[in-house]
Amino acid sequence: MKREIRIGMVGYQFMGKAHSHAYRDLPFYFDVSTTPVLKAICGRKEESVKEAAEKMGWESYETDWRKLIAREDIDVIDIVTPNHTHAEIAIAAAKAGKHIITEKPLALTLEEAKEMYSAVKEHNVGHLICHNYRYAPAVQYAKKLIEEGLLGRIYHFRARYLQDFIMSPDFPLIWRLKKEVAGSGALGDIGAHSIDLGRFLAGEIQSLVGTKETFIKERPIGEMSGGLSASSDFSSVGEVTVDDACAFLCRFENGALGTFEATRFAGGNRNKNEFEINGENGSLRWNMEDMNKLDVYLAKDEEGLQGFRTINCTEEIHPYAGAYWPAGHIIGYEHTFINLFHSFLEGLYQDKKDYPDFEDGVKNQAVLAAVEESDETGGWVNVPS
Amino acid sequence: MKREIRIGMVGYQFMGKAHSHAYRDLPFYFDVSTTPVLKAICGRKEESVKEAAEKMGWESYETDWRKLIAREDIDVIDIVTPNHTHAEIAIAAAKAGKHIITEKPLALTLEEAKEMYSAVKEHNVGHLICHNYRYAPAVQYAKKLIEEGLLGRIYHFRARYLQDFIMSPDFPLIWRLKKEVAGSGALGDIGAHSIDLGRFLAGEIQSLVGTKETFIKERPIGEMSGGLSASSDFSSVGEVTVDDACAFLCRFENGALGTFEATRFAGGNRNKNEFEINGENGSLRWNMEDMNKLDVYLAKDEEGLQGFRTINCTEEIHPYAGAYWPAGHIIGYEHTFINLFHSFLEGLYQDKKDYPDFEDGVKNQAVLAAVEESDETGGWVNVPS
Amino acid sequence: MKREIRIGMVGYQFMGKAHSHAYRDLPFYFDVSTTPVLKAICGRKEESVKEAAEKMGWESYETDWRKLIAREDIDVIDIVTPNHTHAEIAIAAAKAGKHIITEKPLALTLEEAKEMYSAVKEHNVGHLICHNYRYAPAVQYAKKLIEEGLLGRIYHFRARYLQDFIMSPDFPLIWRLKKEVAGSGALGDIGAHSIDLGRFLAGEIQSLVGTKETFIKERPIGEMSGGLSASSDFSSVGEVTVDDACAFLCRFENGALGTFEATRFAGGNRNKNEFEINGENGSLRWNMEDMNKLDVYLAKDEEGLQGFRTINCTEEIHPYAGAYWPAGHIIGYEHTFINLFHSFLEGLYQDKKDYPDFEDGVKNQAVLAAVEESDETGGWVNVPS
Amino acid sequence: MKREIRIGMVGYQFMGKAHSHAYRDLPFYFDVSTTPVLKAICGRKEESVKEAAEKMGWESYETDWRKLIAREDIDVIDIVTPNHTHAEIAIAAAKAGKHIITEKPLALTLEEAKEMYSAVKEHNVGHLICHNYRYAPAVQYAKKLIEEGLLGRIYHFRARYLQDFIMSPDFPLIWRLKKEVAGSGALGDIGAHSIDLGRFLAGEIQSLVGTKETFIKERPIGEMSGGLSASSDFSSVGEVTVDDACAFLCRFENGALGTFEATRFAGGNRNKNEFEINGENGSLRWNMEDMNKLDVYLAKDEEGLQGFRTINCTEEIHPYAGAYWPAGHIIGYEHTFINLFHSFLEGLYQDKKDYPDFEDGVKNQAVLAAVEESDETGGWVNVPS
Repeated sequence: MKREIRIGMVGYQFMGKAHSHAYRDLPFYFDVSTTPVLKAICGRKEESVKEAAEKMGWESYETDWRKLIAREDIDVIDIVTPNHTHAEIAIAAAKAGKHIITEKPLALTLEEAKEMYSAVKEHNVGHLICHNYRYAPAVQYAKKLIEEGLLGRIYHFRARYLQDFIMSPDFPLIWRLKKEVAGSGALGDIGAHSIDLGRFLAGEIQSLVGTKETFIKERPIGEMSGGLSASSDFSSVGEVTVDDACAFLCRFENGALGTFEATRFAGGNRNKNEFEINGENGSLRWNMEDMNKLDVYLAKDEEGLQGFRTINCTEEIHPYAGAYWPAGHIIGYEHTFINLFHSFLEGLYQDKKDYPDFEDGVKNQAVLAAVEESDETGGWVNVPS
Repeated sequence: MKREIRIGMVGYQFMGKAHSHAYRDLPFYFDVSTTPVLKAICGRKEESVKEAAEKMGWESYETDWRKLIAREDIDVIDIVTPNHTHAEIAIAAAKAGKHIITEKPLALTLEEAKEMYSAVKEHNVGHLICHNYRYAPAVQYAKKLIEEGLLGRIYHFRARYLQDFIMSPDFPLIWRLKKEVAGSGALGDIGAHSIDLGRFLAGEIQSLVGTKETFIKERPIGEMSGGLSASSDFSSVGEVTVDDACAFLCRFENGALGTFEATRFAGGNRNKNEFEINGENGSLRWNMEDMNKLDVYLAKDEEGLQGFRTINCTEEIHPYAGAYWPAGHIIGYEHTFINLFHSFLEGLYQDKKDYPDFEDGVKNQAVLAAVEESDETGGWVNVPS
Repeated sequence: MKREIRIGMVGYQFMGKAHSHAYRDLPFYFDVSTTPVLKAICGRKEESVKEAAEKMGWESYETDWRKLIAREDIDVIDIVTPNHTHAEIAIAAAKAGKHIITEKPLALTLEEAKEMYSAVKEHNVGHLICHNYRYAPAVQYAKKLIEEGLLGRIYHFRARYLQDFIMSPDFPLIWRLKKEVAGSGALGDIGAHSIDLGRFLAGEIQSLVGTKETFIKERPIGEMSGGLSASSDFSSVGEVTVDDACAFLCRFENGALGTFEATRFAGGNRNKNEFEINGENGSLRWNMEDMNKLDVYLAKDEEGLQGFRTINCTEEIHPYAGAYWPAGHIIGYEHTFINLFHSFLEGLYQDKKDYPDFEDGVKNQAVLAAVEESDETGGWVNVPS
Repeated sequence: MKREIRIGMVGYQFMGKAHSHAYRDLPFYFDVSTTPVLKAICGRKEESVKEAAEKMGWESYETDWRKLIAREDIDVIDIVTPNHTHAEIAIAAAKAGKHIITEKPLALTLEEAKEMYSAVKEHNVGHLICHNYRYAPAVQYAKKLIEEGLLGRIYHFRARYLQDFIMSPDFPLIWRLKKEVAGSGALGDIGAHSIDLGRFLAGEIQSLVGTKETFIKERPIGEMSGGLSASSDFSSVGEVTVDDACAFLCRFENGALGTFEATRFAGGNRNKNEFEINGENGSLRWNMEDMNKLDVYLAKDEEGLQGFRTINCTEEIHPYAGAYWPAGHIIGYEHTFINLFHSFLEGLYQDKKDYPDFEDGVKNQAVLAAVEESDETGGWVNVPS
């Protein structure tokens, strides 16, 4: 008899779709001991949330997240709303004894993030932050190779997250471009993913120096129309209060040199989330747009035969890949969420928590805060450990 | 109110999993007028089929396909069993007035294929053959570009389907390697997909000359253990009676020159299903292992700036892609089935049948038969139109 | 004290430039025991040949190739004229006791080719046919790996040579498009290179079935203006009497299955000369447009870490590469000729002839002839050994 | 009648070979008004320099660079010695009225660089710094596209120069690893090239913040044995006094955000010199290991058909490419020097100096100095204009 875990989700846009899908598909692909039940979805507009519930297969809906949290038939609160709401909802959910899943970045500020982490610890509930890119099989495999010592001492971690969806000056002032809602721009939205990959693979960041830039400072008022596209109202404009791009240099605790860049102004790069890591015995390269592949260089390979191998991480031996299709039959973006939730749900009632949690969220937020501080001071900033 | 269509599926291995998943996910991604219901699944071993039904979300199960066909609560029979059973099941289903979905190749022989086609026409039921690779958004977009005349006169279509999963002499004699069950080897299993892509994009094949080869002629007895992996029993061996590899040259009706190769002996190529098409005004290239990308060359591009563009077919403008994720967030193998079934279910009750049907199956089978004949005679063979 | 070898070259277009350059650069890069001296160049138009001699560094010039051959200060006759002149010049040179270098294809017909080979054997002179692509370091390295047994039994050799320089119907009727001058079209011009790579790497071709096609049957009269570009006179047209494209399937003597295609109608492919070879233990891939790279797949690599390695064959360990630049500093097209001539000049006076000679030219021509015959008969043709 | 220009070169290792070759090949490929004459080469070890002169085709040799400068039959002094000698030799040459070519970086320090620039201006001699990578046809074409406005406002320039030749701790303490001889490590050796590409394509750098790192702090004493390989004497070790890796963030004068990284510790990257530039209307990407290709993204391309084009910059329309081979026949590393010297020699006696000169050298050195300063202060540094 399988344990059921009843999910209540707040929000239902891009991330809501990704999460809903992952809950639905998880038991299809994996033999899980804990099965998610899509119990209730929550949003302020009744008509929209009702439609979303039907489309995505939720049993019921709410229009007030406090009511959702109050429901006794909910075990997990999943927060996929804009960033400025994470803390309040999460803390309330923790007080209500619910396990919590939240999108990244954890919060608007480091302080908020710490409060959230305190709350989940105090109330002893499970907590997950959705750094889904860790869960591409190729990235999980990279982690395994590093842990097995294949690279040896790490010298370099370099990451870029390049997008271009807001390059047009006509693209509207969506919530992701307002500091009071999003906290930051490219930094927290996509840079946070690169930071998580860096922490996951190369370890903690000790100190950094960074900068950020807003290329287009005013935009027409407008809204997201789903996904990452949007429509504009040209009759009025507003100020962009977050970064369009950012970059920082850092030292990892292990002595590695890190370089990070995140931008929404790199034309032609729709979603190029890539990293390279160089160690004394080898190197790894990965790029989300080709997420099934991992490039591996091994210095021990015979002279003459040295070169990056392009490994299609779709074989049974590659983490999570065996649950899907035969070798060479690729998976996509959504599967990173299925794997992430698998890790959370299997770990929740056991003593093997290898998923990213609010502690990771706090550490990530500390890096984001350090970049903001460095941008202001112009100097190196130590990241609190 | 949405129409429901009740599916009964015979078989539950690799293809059964792919189909089941697609039925489940279809209404999540698309606003469909017809919703599939996973009514019943059928297999001979009760324990296994029962377990499969639970795992994949089927309401009930049967152990005799005749009973499945006899059930009144089934609208569609989906056949994902080995090739030698397609004809009998499909013809019986047609007689029972069921719509029919079947895996490729349609049948063991051209004669069988024709009988199947006659049956579905006689009984006026819907029919689909699962040439899913047509339904990668990049391939659908290629089709659209060709139909809009972007390439002009077609000169070349070249396709290769390269796999390597049976290269070890220890790989067992699975059903795919027995002529009486599979009909043919690489030819009908993967070559059939390339032929379908050729017919879809470049038109009908008029005549061809081909050859085939079996590199390893005896193998240990053994079984598939799911997907494309298998286990062997080394105490006894049997004869491989199908081709390990095949190739043919052809003329299309439009005068284009075609070259095709399909093999399971191309080490390092897990599932490299690729084609290139050259027309007077441009070229297109695609490869299943990078299925989201389409390379497009346009001769009209300004001098100096000419080169293949690598297009990430994940934008809303690309066929089917808008139903999934924002640009740059790739999809995978399984989505080709979701798109395929979307096309079938939306077309079934309307007058816009653009999905591959049994007529396509017969034409594809005619090409397979012509390759077999040419391999025997050593000469060119006309493909019956 | 180094031996000098005095070259007399007939012709001075594209190939004349490539050869002249290679003679000049050879002693710069390699410690050769035999130094080429650019003694005399020959062409019918005095003004042009005089200018070419000055530009390319030849000591003198002739306007009659018979005079060139008669000169006592010439040791080697290098033939870079259109194909229909190869036989007459080469046979005369052999009679005069000159060593002979000639461009490919060796001759217009197999009979001519055999006569040329008889002549050089009878007069005991050195002979080289310029299959320069063998001499990319990556291809030489591929050969070495195969000879060392890295691939084991060979299953597949597949080659494509794709160009697009004559796709415009306005491109003129240059000599390469006339059968009486060129012998054949894409077949002998570029297909011959693929055949040579196949013979070099996979062994002799036993039998084949092939076809060819002329897509544009009439063209304006015109001339090459150097390289592979040309100018047209639109007032008159002539018939294209060679193939625009060709393809064939073959069996190698070792049982491998071969597929070949050569075309000048593959838009976007400027000079894509590529092959892949699959053996029981590994695979190799190469493409002239990225000529410094060799992709190598080894089945013996640890499970999980299997994939094609992209090797930049620019290290000292790679054949010929050490003579040039440090690792990662690539070389280009012209270096294949330098390496080829190095092999010839070093082998000429020693007992280590590993360069392609007129025997290779005859065998290559036999394959070309078999393709032509198969195109006429429509059946398989044995290639005489 | 062509003007001759007589070269005297100091040094004859890796760069000496590259320069010598370029002088030899220049008149072969280009119709130049000024022909270089390889007059004399200079080195301290008579036997070695004599051998080098013969091998590389120099008419004579000297063992004292002062004597070389004093010779009246020398027009140009070409300095390819280690960095700490550039200033003294160049200033002496300027005083002697010789034109000067020098390798990068211009000098050990910004002060030295400025003195060198003053000297060449004072004595009114020609001056060239060998930033050869500008002269890959693909980079020249990138420059042309940018100047024509194809990209519009520039948002980002990011560059990485990744090597791995000193990763082994056994690699010896060659001169490139000593501050008193080399000035800096990866920074001045390869970072300087990236900086030059940034200045060439995106404009002047206004301010920066940077860091550097030495991963292996002691190495065995040893020597280069040509190229970038070396031999070690393990009986004694010495301190590495330059950076193994460095990175910096910067603002360009035009507002673009720049990120730079240079390292010799990126395993598997033999010589990966790459950049990407993003503008409001498009993006460009280039990588020296595939130096013939330029990736171009144009935002104006039709929706659906947007993607990076891979352009093989080997066509007559691409800068310098027409001098070499037909389209698709690639050139290599050495050709960047031929093109560079062509630009210098054609510009020297005319009023079209578009080659990198000592002013560029000073500006580049100012960036190097700013990185060093920033590494010490930990803050942003303005680059003097």
